[in-house]
Amino acid sequence: MSEEGAVVVLSGGQDSTTCLFWAKQKFPGEIEAITFDYGQRHRIELESAGRVASIAKVPHKTLPINTFNTLGGNALTGDIDVSSELDSESGLPNTFVPGRNLIFLTFAAAYAYQRKISNLVTGVAQTDYSGYPDCRQETIESLQRSICLGMEYDIQIHAPLMWLSKKETVEMAHSAGALEAMAYTHTCYNGEQPPCGDCPSCKIRAKGFAEAGIDDPLITRFHGFKNA
Amino acid sequence: MSEEGAVVVLSGGQDSTTCLFWAKQKFPGEIEAITFDYGQRHRIELESAGRVASIAKVPHKTLPINTFNTLGGNALTGDIDVSSELDSESGLPNTFVPGRNLIFLTFAAAYAYQRKISNLVTGVAQTDYSGYPDCRQETIESLQRSICLGMEYDIQIHAPLMWLSKKETVEMAHSAGALEAMAYTHTCYNGEQPPCGDCPSCKIRAKGFAEAGIDDPLITRFHGFKNA
Repeated sequence: MSEEGAVVVLSGGQDSTTCLFWAKQKFPGEIEAITFDYGQRHRIELESAGRVASIAKVPHKTLPINTFNTLGGNALTGDIDVSSELDSESGLPNTFVPGRNLIFLTFAAAYAYQRKISNLVTGVAQTDYSGYPDCRQETIESLQRSICLGMEYDIQIHAPLMWLSKKETVEMAHSAGALEAMAYTHTCYNGEQPPCGDCPSCKIRAKGFAEAGIDDPLITRFHGFKNA
Repeated sequence: MSEEGAVVVLSGGQDSTTCLFWAKQKFPGEIEAITFDYGQRHRIELESAGRVASIAKVPHKTLPINTFNTLGGNALTGDIDVSSELDSESGLPNTFVPGRNLIFLTFAAAYAYQRKISNLVTGVAQTDYSGYPDCRQETIESLQRSICLGMEYDIQIHAPLMWLSKKETVEMAHSAGALEAMAYTHTCYNGEQPPCGDCPSCKIRAKGFAEAGIDDPLITRFHGFKNA
């Protein structure tokens, strides 16, 4: 078993890209990236993930999950508009797919199991605005235990961004050498490229880069240096 | 929220069929059955599940999962022969899909979440010969906690067969009124109908019915009453 390698769940966004480069620095063994094609409305995420993995020079596997679309009823996979309002009943954003992250990490663990790799890395953050309950530390710790028991396999889930602000995440991306790849990440909730700049996701990203005093390579790629 | 209803994970086999009828007796609210089409080699399982749900007169939903086939490498979804030998490295049967039951229960919980149902029923049993680690009580309890945290949803997972012998499971099926449906269940690991009678699964089923002193309606359907 490779206790030295890691499987990184790579969505093609800013956070998971940061984690991929973080993992390359942290683990001496083989790093692999895994991306889920779960019917996301913004197919550009998959292209971004492939591009990022290629820049990082790591093997990249895309796993399909056709189940969420059949479950239906949310803005990221369905035809419902993304709303900035929270659901009046659940208090969650309507982009919430119940259990999505539980499923991703369990499939990623199954993949790691087969590859005999014992570290999993995910870009979830409790400090994230979205408040998804499956991104919280307590959930991740419980899920790690469930996976270890359910697969009889000693896997460790790392969530290096869990307690970081967006500013600190940008600083980590910088020190991990992720900025070149960052130019090809996709974060915009409206699926636009260049990013719309108006959705909560774009705004939080912009704020993080501004606070870190670093130009966002994605913006630079489309609009040139803002601070030049 | 319906604390009175339940979603039953129905594979179309003996155990989950027993659980479906058990749930109909136990919960006063709406009972629903959910089946996963995960690329199982024996498609007859899906037909069996539909037939059983129809006899039980419960709504039945089949959810596709195309991920395991891409993960590959096991006898139930791949082209590998079912072996009665255990894998020399993992000590598990080669029908083991790592995390399969974790995935099933998490998707079933997402479905229950959407239907505002708070009970999940699964036919897993720790006394089962197969020894799958994701069928053990400790795993199920941990997973329940992970799901509750990850979905912020108070779900209860029931595994009524967990500590029963096959004889006791047959007795439960009898007292829950499941015997009519039992004639259409599918358990044979070789996918045969009438069942092969030789695989470990057929042998354990036959032993359970014999010990309970009850004719297996599935055998009776094909071969008539053995004890007549």
